[in-house]
Formats: sequence, structure tokens, C-alpha cells
Amino acid sequence: MTASEVDHVDHVEHAGSRRGRSARQAERLAKGLESLPYLTRKLAPVEVISAEGLETIEHNADTLLEEVGIEIVNYPEAVDIFRSAGADADGMRVRFPRGLCRSLINASAPRIFTQRARNDARSVVIGDPHMVLVPTYGSPFIHNLDDGRRYATIEDFRNFVKLTYTSRTLHHGGGTLCEPVDLPVNKRHFEMVYSHIRYSDRAFMGSVTHPSRAQDSVEMARILFGADVMEREHVIMGLANANSPMSWDFNMLGSARAYAAANQIMLITPFILGGAMAPVTVAAQATQTLAEALAGMAFCQIVRPGAPVIFGSFASSMSMQTGAPTFGTPEPQLVLFVLAALARRLGVPFRSGGNFTASKIPDYQAAYESAISFMATMQAGVNFNLHTAGWLEGGLAIGYEKFILDEDQASMTAAYIGGVDTTDNGYALDAMLAGGPGQHFLGSPHTLANFEDAFWRSELSNNDSFEQWEIDGALDAAQRANRKWKQRLAAYEMPPLDEGTHEALVDWMDRRKASFPDSDV
Amino acid sequence: MTASEVDHVDHVEHAGSRRGRSARQAERLAKGLESLPYLTRKLAPVEVISAEGLETIEHNADTLLEEVGIEIVNYPEAVDIFRSAGADADGMRVRFPRGLCRSLINASAPRIFTQRARNDARSVVIGDPHMVLVPTYGSPFIHNLDDGRRYATIEDFRNFVKLTYTSRTLHHGGGTLCEPVDLPVNKRHFEMVYSHIRYSDRAFMGSVTHPSRAQDSVEMARILFGADVMEREHVIMGLANANSPMSWDFNMLGSARAYAAANQIMLITPFILGGAMAPVTVAAQATQTLAEALAGMAFCQIVRPGAPVIFGSFASSMSMQTGAPTFGTPEPQLVLFVLAALARRLGVPFRSGGNFTASKIPDYQAAYESAISFMATMQAGVNFNLHTAGWLEGGLAIGYEKFILDEDQASMTAAYIGGVDTTDNGYALDAMLAGGPGQHFLGSPHTLANFEDAFWRSELSNNDSFEQWEIDGALDAAQRANRKWKQRLAAYEMPPLDEGTHEALVDWMDRRKASFPDSDV
Repeated sequence: MTASEVDHVDHVEHAGSRRGRSARQAERLAKGLESLPYLTRKLAPVEVISAEGLETIEHNADTLLEEVGIEIVNYPEAVDIFRSAGADADGMRVRFPRGLCRSLINASAPRIFTQRARNDARSVVIGDPHMVLVPTYGSPFIHNLDDGRRYATIEDFRNFVKLTYTSRTLHHGGGTLCEPVDLPVNKRHFEMVYSHIRYSDRAFMGSVTHPSRAQDSVEMARILFGADVMEREHVIMGLANANSPMSWDFNMLGSARAYAAANQIMLITPFILGGAMAPVTVAAQATQTLAEALAGMAFCQIVRPGAPVIFGSFASSMSMQTGAPTFGTPEPQLVLFVLAALARRLGVPFRSGGNFTASKIPDYQAAYESAISFMATMQAGVNFNLHTAGWLEGGLAIGYEKFILDEDQASMTAAYIGGVDTTDNGYALDAMLAGGPGQHFLGSPHTLANFEDAFWRSELSNNDSFEQWEIDGALDAAQRANRKWKQRLAAYEMPPLDEGTHEALVDWMDRRKASFPDSDV
Repeated sequence: MTASEVDHVDHVEHAGSRRGRSARQAERLAKGLESLPYLTRKLAPVEVISAEGLETIEHNADTLLEEVGIEIVNYPEAVDIFRSAGADADGMRVRFPRGLCRSLINASAPRIFTQRARNDARSVVIGDPHMVLVPTYGSPFIHNLDDGRRYATIEDFRNFVKLTYTSRTLHHGGGTLCEPVDLPVNKRHFEMVYSHIRYSDRAFMGSVTHPSRAQDSVEMARILFGADVMEREHVIMGLANANSPMSWDFNMLGSARAYAAANQIMLITPFILGGAMAPVTVAAQATQTLAEALAGMAFCQIVRPGAPVIFGSFASSMSMQTGAPTFGTPEPQLVLFVLAALARRLGVPFRSGGNFTASKIPDYQAAYESAISFMATMQAGVNFNLHTAGWLEGGLAIGYEKFILDEDQASMTAAYIGGVDTTDNGYALDAMLAGGPGQHFLGSPHTLANFEDAFWRSELSNNDSFEQWEIDGALDAAQRANRKWKQRLAAYEMPPLDEGTHEALVDWMDRRKASFPDSDV
């Protein structure tokens, strides 16, 4: 079938059934016309520290777990759970015999697993040598060139679900794309999970702000996928942050328990602002992150051996003048490289990195800080990259233009982690021997054969002459991105969803929402 | 002496002799109050290809030199020079027995050497494990927020000499910071070299647009440093680009000959637009760059064994739609990593990388492309980094704000290449054992002891709250940079220069300029 024939079939199917449309999508995917469901790494990860250094960090992390231990805040049941697996409990404090957490994780946590999406062609494989790109998470504000900065609403949330659904770069729907602050705190999770299900067909994350909300998220996934699938497969993910240093609380561990007990995925991420929640040095931040994450991941394995966990790290540097978090600085990139190496040694998937910045707007600062962070993300061997697109203002805002700009740049990841082609086609010796001094290669058979995929190209960068760029309105990158997100939202079409499933989901959600009063805590 | 005492002495000396001022500078340097003259790497370079891959590239480069050879355009004397060292000459074409170029280079080219600055405290050491940061080179246009884009003048050139002189990040004065297009083409080099000498005290580069202009540059350096110093030491550098593929011309080799014969430094840089001057693949671009550079560096060693050479690479990707060069893409970063590894194996200093972009303005695109390029530059093991600051529009323009923004970000290089501290202070185990769960580290003895140098900080990035940033005028990074370059130029003070030397230089230059008519070719 020629390309124009495919287009013709598209037109016919467009007017036809939803089944036809998803069949067309599958065909496009098979032909490589749509984006890959996740990426595969060939380039070796960057290493910044010796094996001896990594062993010292592992030893020190075990010393912290043994001597300081972890404080379990407001959750006596979690203390009992840890005790049941051999930890020493003293009130809220749990101390771990050397090696206990690691052996619990090694005994049952998978090195690699699949998170199923309701469109199975978009299921993601999480673990080496793969990489999954995910939008940013958790911002109470949005920013765009039209409105400036304002509180986020559920409408913004849906917009970012739609932009993620239509992305050719991102692989996973993410979770709390922004906080819908126009909804009551204790019921936001229903609308967020519903929006991921209804407006996209990608894999997604549920709530963790309270164990009951985590449980609600799991229940909604169960209605969507069915109890059988849910028991066998992994269809929803939660994200838990430690209360660094060396503390885990009821909301986080309780939520982790809800996901793990249902055989679902927990992303265990200590959040470290260096100098505040940990010492200022790279090796110390890596040590403490490892200790806290070991305890969190071990907890999931005790709750349900084999429930998938991802070892996460979020580390930022701090302005020693003002205490503000800073991004795109060298030190957190070094932390990222060290932790990725520690995750490989532990044998679980790794999450870190993203397009981070402290800037309030998509300016030079925002891009420089983001690119420095994202280059390390591509290089380190990250398997699950939360915060690939949208992050502004230290995470307080998600930017519409920033999302589009980051997504565009992150599309280089496949080419970057593909590494150097060392086949004969890559060396291209014959092509060079056939050309002579001063001859160009524009029309050489080798160039023509490699034309399509020769160089990654940005869809948003402007490589025109100055004169052409002026004629076209002299737009900066953010202005071009502003046009693009509007086009994408205007062209958005909702993916099909089985009517019966949709009704069951809405029905369950309505009854559950009506069963307790709105609250803003 | 306390800091305020130093300030007091500064004031006193400010009104006093020039000798006092330079003594004060030396004192500040000794106290670490001024920037380092060059950087030293501890972090291992990133490797992206196996030793076998590098051997194949070396083998293929020798095959190119042996079978295709190099065309020497309009320079029969250079053909004779190559022949004298054992190459086969056939008209303009010179072919090299396998291994000849490498053995000529290995026999005499230094692995590491010093380029002396007229202020010896600012002399730079070029070669592993060091890194020297240099401003951008060769733009006919300037860009700033006040004027937009316009042709560069000698006034702009002097401004960039002054900004480089006052930089705490850059180590070397560079060369053709911009083209002073208000001066006749055949006399620009006098004013450029004079400006480097008069308005700065850093090491600098001379002209290469014609062998006679290269010779003039060398003569001016000889007047400044004296014939004795010139014979023993390396005080000026020229930059030669091959006419890729596989061709060197009269202006470039003739200029290289002028510098090398005077025991001065040549930077030998094939300039490859992938798909045009070489095949599209990474390994092929590395192969051809190596072949062309080997011939150029060998030429310098034949002219004068021991004259320092730097192995350079400039590789960009190309838009396969429009033919325009593109920057910040993954492929040229991979080329950079491969060539840095090849330079280490050859045993000569390496130059590549910089803050590259195709953007016309200092926007998100400019920063993202620049940071991706510069991160690779920091990681690869580059020894001499031309184009650290200022590059816009594929090199057609140098930006005033871009210069300031790049210089600011490039100041992270020292922290980045310093790598991970694996001393006890770096591991900080005692600090973590002393803290308890939930306790912050802001006041811990370890934090206080490491406070000053804990995290690299940008002087230009804004890490304030949104509200504070708004109160301060809601400036973007480029607007902040606009203020900064104006402040820097306003505060500029000319470094002292011996009166006799200055008179001799101006006298020689005036006579030489009067000896031939102005010309714009």
C-alpha cells in the first residue's frame, strides 16, 4: 500500500467505526508512522564514580538503616509490618539489620515489568534497557503566555491529559499533571483518575494523598481493567516521597500499601533538597536516598512479594543564600548518575531527572537549566522519567508552552540513547572512498539511503535564515509553542472507551463521592 | 588582612601606580578572589564507543589518507613539504603511507603546553587534564536587545575583548570575536590583534585569512613579547579549517606555516556539516575529521617539529529539508565524544564544542541547544573550548546577552568536571549519623564547613519566589543579561601596558598599514 493509499483508508475509516480507527492506529504503529510505546537504550550509561565508591555508599546506607533507622510517623501498623520481616522496632523507630532491605527487594521485586495501558499498544515496559517518558507531576499553578501564572483547574488538568495523549514523544500519561484546585481536596483524585481514563488511553498514575484515595484509585483501575487482569497485571502506579531525612509517614506508606497489596506499582522517591534534608555533598545525598528508598521498597515487598517497585530519586541543590531550590546545577546531575548506578546494582528500575528549572517563564534560564538536567537524564540510564515536560518554577507551575518545548526537545532521546552506529553503514568507508576531495555528499547513495533518519529534528526549533525568520513574524520559541498547544487542543479527538465500562466507572465514582462530604484537607 | 582591609588597600592603590594594581591582582588571585587561569578535570571523560570502534575509525582514516589523499589547493610549496616527509604527491593530490601522519605527530607534537599571556598569571595550560574556556569566533553580525541584529564593527570587537577580559569564567581572549566589517578586509587583523593586546592581558589568537596576515599577527606578538620569548614560548595561536572533504588550501596551510615556523600554536579544525561535507553518520564524520586533522597537524610538525598543535573538530547536523546547519541535536554530541577519545589516543590536546544554536535570539531554543552542546563539551574531555560564550544564529552573530548568559552558565564547568568527592567529607557519614529522622541539616557542622562551595551558583539565574520576581520587574534572563553587559562595559578599566612596547607596536602597525592600499578582498 502506498502512503496516499493509507491516507485514503484513513479518510474512509475516519467516518466509520471506532474499531476501524483503533485498527488504523495499530497499523500505523506497525509501519512506524506513530511513535514508539517506549524507548530502548543502546548507549552505555554514564558512570561518574568507581565501583569502590558505590560499595562505600551501599555500606554507609546500611549503616544508616542499622544505626539511625527510619521513623514511621503515625502508622503503628507499618512498624508491625517491618517487624514481621525481621526489623527491630522501638516505638516509631525501625532499625534494619545490615542487608535486610536489600535481600527483601532482591528476593521478589522484578527487574523489569510492564504497565498495561487500556490501549495495549501503549503499554510501557519499565526497566533496563528501556526508557519511558512521562509529563511533569504535582503543580498547583499553570503558566502560559495568555494568562501568565494562575491556579490550575480541572480544565487545565484535562488539557494536559489531552496534550499527553496526542504527544509523539511521551509514553505514559503521568499522574497529578497539575492540582485541580477548583475541586475539593478530598475528591480531586476521582476527577483526575477519571480524566486519565476518559481523555487518554495511556498508562497512568493514581492518588497518594491519603491511603483511602490510593484505594479509590486502585478501585477505579479495577473497574476499567477488570479484577482478573488487575490481579495478574500492573495497570496503575502510585508515587511515594519519603519525609527526608529517614522518615516515612502514614499517608505515604499507607498509600504504598494500597497499591502494593493490589499487585500494583509503587514509585519510591526520596525528595532531597541538599543542605536541608541531607548533607550538601553528592555522595551523602546518594547514600541517604539509597537508605530511605531501600526501606520504602522493602516495605512494598513485605506487603506483597513481587509487587513492582521503582527506585526513585529527586535531588536538587539549594541556594545557600536564600534556601531556595536551584536546578540545572552540576551537583544534582552527579547525584543522578550515582543513583542510577546504585539502582542497576540493586536490580530494580530507576526513576529520576526531567526538564527542571527554577525560572518562572520559558526563557533562557528555563531552557538552560532544563537541558542540563535532561541531558543527564538521557545519559544516566533512567527507566521512568517523570517530569519530562512542563516543569516551571521549581515545580510550582506547569507551563503550557514549557510542556510543548520540552516535549519537542525530549523527542531527541531515541536518537541520543541509540548511540553510535558501528555497522558498515555507520562507518560509511565506501561512501568516503567514492567521493573525492572537495566533493559534497548531498547526492551520494549513502546519504540518500540514510536521508530519513540521518539526524534528529526538532519540530519547533527555527533553523531558517534570519531574513526568513523575520518574514515569518520573528517569533521566539515560546511564541511558536503557544500556537502549537492551541492547535493540538483544537485538533484533539477523544479515544474510544467501552460504553458499559464508562457507565460502571461513573456510577461507582458518583456513589463514592456522595458517600462523604467535601473537604479541603 | 580582612576583606574590608583588602577593599581599603584597593581604594588606595586605585589612585596609585599601575604596578600597585597588578600586584593587587596577583594577591587576589593567590587568595582565590579572582578566577582560576584554567580548569582541571577530575571527572572521567564520557565514552560512547568501544576501543574496537575507535581502532576501526583510525584504520579507516588511514585508508582515506592512503587511497583518496588530500588535495592541496593553490599551494605547490605545501605539496613539496609533504613530499619531503615521505608522502606521495601527484599534482595537487598528496597521499600518505599508512601511519605516516600519526608518526610525524607522535614524534614531536607536545601532549600539553602553555600559551603565555602578557599577564603571566593568566597564561593557560592546554592539554589533559585541563580545560580552557574561550569566547566565540568569527561572526559578521552582532545581536543585542537594543539594536537587534546588525553588522559588527571594531567597536563591538573591542567591547567583546573588554567583556572577555573582565570575565570570571573565560580563560583566554579568543581571536576574531566578531568581524569588524567597518574596516577594510585586508587590514582588520591589525586592529583585532592590537585590541587583544591593548584592552586585555589574556592569551589570544591571530589572523589566518591570508598567510601574510598570519605573519603580521606573529610579528605583533613578537614586538609584545620580544624575539627571545617568542622563540622559546608559545604566545599566539591560529585557527585553520580544512576545506572538507579532504582538501586544504593556500590561505589555511600558508597561515599554519607562518605560525608553526615561529614555534607558535595551530588549531587544526575540520569543519563538517554532516550530509554535505561528509556522510551523515557519526562514525564517518569522526573518520573524515580525523583524516583531515592528521594531515594538517602533520604539516605543522614537518614545518617545525615541536610546534604545538591542537586537534579540533567542528561538526554540525543539517536539516535534511532545507540544508541549514542545526545545533543541539544528538548526533554532533556523539561525534564530539568520539573525537575526544581519538585525540586522547593520538596524544594531542583537543578542541571542540561550545554553546551552539541556530536561533536568532537568546530564547528557549537558543538555551536548550546551547546547553545540550555545552554539557557534552564539559563531559567529553575538551581541552580548549572555542565558542564558550556568545554564539547565535549558527555563528553568523555574536550576541551581547548571549555572551553574558553563556559565560554565566559555563561557570559551572569547574564544579561539573570536579566530579564526585569521595573523601570522608564527601561521604559525610558522621553528619548523617549525628542527625536524626526528620531533622534538617541547615545548621549541622558539616553543612557549615562546606557552606561556601557546596553548590555552584549562577549569578544570573533567578531562584526567587514568583512574587519576589514580579516585584523585581519580572525580567527574563536576557533582560537581566542586558543590564549586566552594560554594567560590565561601564566599569571596565584598561590593564596596564608598558609605554615603550605600546609605542613600538603602534609604530610598526602604522608603517605596515601604510605600506599597501586598503582592499575588501
